[in-house]
Amino acid sequence: MTAAARQEWIAAQLSDIVGNSGLVMASEGLGRYCRDWSGDIVGIPLLVVRPRGVEQVSRIVAFCAANELKLVPQGGHTGLVGGGTPTDRGDEIILSLELMNEIGALDEHNFSLEVQAGCILENVRAHVADRGFVFPLALGSQGSCQIGGAIATNAGGLNVLRYGMMRELVLGLEVVLPDGRIWNGLKALRKDNTGYDFKQVILGSEGTLGVVTAATLKLFPQPTQIETAFVSLHSLEAVIDLYGLARRRLSDLLSAFELLTQEGVEISGQANPLGEPAPIYVLIEVSASGPVDVRSLLESFLEESMGSGLIADAALATSTAQAASFWKIREEVIEAQLRRGRHLRTDVSMPISAIPAFIRIAGDVIGKISSDAIVLAYGHVGDGNLHFNVVPPAYLDEGAKVAFLHECEEAIFAVVDELDGSISAEHGIGRLKREAFLKRISPVHADLLQALRTAFDPAGTLSPGRMLKEMPR
Amino acid sequence: MTAAARQEWIAAQLSDIVGNSGLVMASEGLGRYCRDWSGDIVGIPLLVVRPRGVEQVSRIVAFCAANELKLVPQGGHTGLVGGGTPTDRGDEIILSLELMNEIGALDEHNFSLEVQAGCILENVRAHVADRGFVFPLALGSQGSCQIGGAIATNAGGLNVLRYGMMRELVLGLEVVLPDGRIWNGLKALRKDNTGYDFKQVILGSEGTLGVVTAATLKLFPQPTQIETAFVSLHSLEAVIDLYGLARRRLSDLLSAFELLTQEGVEISGQANPLGEPAPIYVLIEVSASGPVDVRSLLESFLEESMGSGLIADAALATSTAQAASFWKIREEVIEAQLRRGRHLRTDVSMPISAIPAFIRIAGDVIGKISSDAIVLAYGHVGDGNLHFNVVPPAYLDEGAKVAFLHECEEAIFAVVDELDGSISAEHGIGRLKREAFLKRISPVHADLLQALRTAFDPAGTLSPGRMLKEMPR
Repeated sequence: MTAAARQEWIAAQLSDIVGNSGLVMASEGLGRYCRDWSGDIVGIPLLVVRPRGVEQVSRIVAFCAANELKLVPQGGHTGLVGGGTPTDRGDEIILSLELMNEIGALDEHNFSLEVQAGCILENVRAHVADRGFVFPLALGSQGSCQIGGAIATNAGGLNVLRYGMMRELVLGLEVVLPDGRIWNGLKALRKDNTGYDFKQVILGSEGTLGVVTAATLKLFPQPTQIETAFVSLHSLEAVIDLYGLARRRLSDLLSAFELLTQEGVEISGQANPLGEPAPIYVLIEVSASGPVDVRSLLESFLEESMGSGLIADAALATSTAQAASFWKIREEVIEAQLRRGRHLRTDVSMPISAIPAFIRIAGDVIGKISSDAIVLAYGHVGDGNLHFNVVPPAYLDEGAKVAFLHECEEAIFAVVDELDGSISAEHGIGRLKREAFLKRISPVHADLLQALRTAFDPAGTLSPGRMLKEMPR
Repeated sequence: MTAAARQEWIAAQLSDIVGNSGLVMASEGLGRYCRDWSGDIVGIPLLVVRPRGVEQVSRIVAFCAANELKLVPQGGHTGLVGGGTPTDRGDEIILSLELMNEIGALDEHNFSLEVQAGCILENVRAHVADRGFVFPLALGSQGSCQIGGAIATNAGGLNVLRYGMMRELVLGLEVVLPDGRIWNGLKALRKDNTGYDFKQVILGSEGTLGVVTAATLKLFPQPTQIETAFVSLHSLEAVIDLYGLARRRLSDLLSAFELLTQEGVEISGQANPLGEPAPIYVLIEVSASGPVDVRSLLESFLEESMGSGLIADAALATSTAQAASFWKIREEVIEAQLRRGRHLRTDVSMPISAIPAFIRIAGDVIGKISSDAIVLAYGHVGDGNLHFNVVPPAYLDEGAKVAFLHECEEAIFAVVDELDGSISAEHGIGRLKREAFLKRISPVHADLLQALRTAFDPAGTLSPGRMLKEMPR
């Protein structure tokens, strides 16, 4: 069979399962299925198949497994590591979950909600907010990101220090296994110690162990009060001291503790709420659903921190508009980065206690590579998670930028290694970080990875080349 | 080789690894290694080996794997399902972690602590309390339970609704794999999305996938205020309405919400703090580490609940002694059960919304089997987790009691099935619940269990017959 004839045969078989409207062929403009949100990752799929319902997913996966086809589940293209974007070899079938976007009934007493994998995070958040609940996964990309992708990648975001990562926000899963069989783990239980927890095995497995088709999500009462402060500090050590104090004084009502640097505030183009510049800033959010006097709580915390010299200055938002303007600074750092074209985004973690050392050492290391690069560090102090990013000197051409940023990444990762950190805190491995990941792990760890992958997907059907090397066929 | 000669040879080989003081032979009184806390589960080991350090564990496991010996890791004997207790066949080597009980340095900024697996939970809690922190796993058995066992079984307990189960309280693990190799995952990171999360695979695997030798635990600020209320209600429906309201009004400061019944209060022998009896009681605990007015918060919640008729009556503890007396009622229910000899302990879960239906239907079902049995239901409303226990009629002889309780268990589990619940919320499967577990799972689920077990422990060395059927040799 020629390649074209084979593609036609595959399309016909898949069309039997999903109908013509469920298929997207190259001729119809595969555009949006080919590139990720950053625009850095672009590929060509064999074709795109869009099932409606778990039975169709099951049949698609079984067909691909039986015919040695490569199948890549795809969510909202916001993963940043090429997990759901096809390679440029044109031999991967993209399994888009976008048509599976039903939101089920909300169980008010159980604080839970069942959703299909293709639901967009923002829609789920809005749906439950209308009913007095919050689904607390909060990401910059929530307008595009799909629940299934957030599960496959164990997404994190802004409120992890209060509510946990996706791993802690899922009560049940429905999964199509790599041979096409359906595993029904769609329970709505908070405690279930019956056997191995396959939900946890699938969470964060990046589409290599199964296709998530539906989930039961854990909900929380919607906060009725949110208070936001923008704080400046003289040193990195003060940041982690302030965080420790915040944990105590603000009890468990702290919902965000985000670090920014003076470089970030400058590049954001937003006004500094504090007038006077300082090397480091922290955005603090405290929230409650009940009649706790959250404002006094935050005020007295800021007074105490000011009195002891831990912070240089602080602004407590007097309106939601002002609170939004504080958050806008953080968002605009990311936008400003994007406008400057090709740049390095890292997503590293370390013990919270090692944050000052990391920022200092990694900053020095980049400074030695080039004093004209701009370092933008921001991130989630309470999770020990920093996005330590580098904008290359503008005078480098594209080829030189690629080499420069690769050198910077290697240098940053070496600092992470020294501090017992992680080179991927919340973005995962996908295709982009695979080599950096695999060269860091022990032979024992490599064997475990391969053993688990082989136990679930001996044929190597799902997401080949993501996280692990592609199996030889 | 005769059995005695073989045992001697094994002892000599293990003695080379751990020294004579690390071995306990039958002649020296194996007593405490043979029976669990309940006294219901008693067995005979081949011998007991007590390593000091991960290298010794590694050598012991490798020796057992190479010689087709059965090795059963044992913690504090409080698991209740026979996971760590030897069978009565006399062919299992017990690996006691009790000598590995070092507590490492506390990282105050990272809110974390490294401990060896044999540390007793109570000691860890006391150690961090002295330094202003709390490790929030709180169990009735915390005076004996070891950290390694709590990890292997994903222990739960009293404060899960606020802090999560063991699964959510572990940042890193060191594990000896079933072939003796050491997997070092002893990180102290809150976010680490690099590859499959083997920590989560080991957590709750009941000693079948590896031996936990050390862990990094997640700490929290120690609460400086704790307020406790004892509340009576007219109906089961009111309990879950009250819980929903508590989640909102008490924000995330609610740390316990425990259900008791009138039968429980009576059998406890403790005075009812409310004078007037009611069918249902709830013990509510609210805590904070910062200057939140927790007492007013709880008071106004109780007033609102009283005003709307949701609760019948309430007592707010005015001293820690009074709060302790409220908790004493709950503890004495368990003691009173134990004093009545053989009884059925279940540990079931369901969606919180299904708690009223479960208690009603299961109560009816037991009433139909015998109107002379005493049903004692208590548990963790916020986790949908009930211990729905049955004390058999006193006039039955031991043999009849066994049959009676088995019939009750089957009947209760059938109700759990109907409500999409779990037959083991926090105790796990071990040996005791294996048959009930295996007959409930789908063929797909059974295949996954076996595939994971085989991927990790193809020789079936560790904890054979726990959770899964023993592999044929």
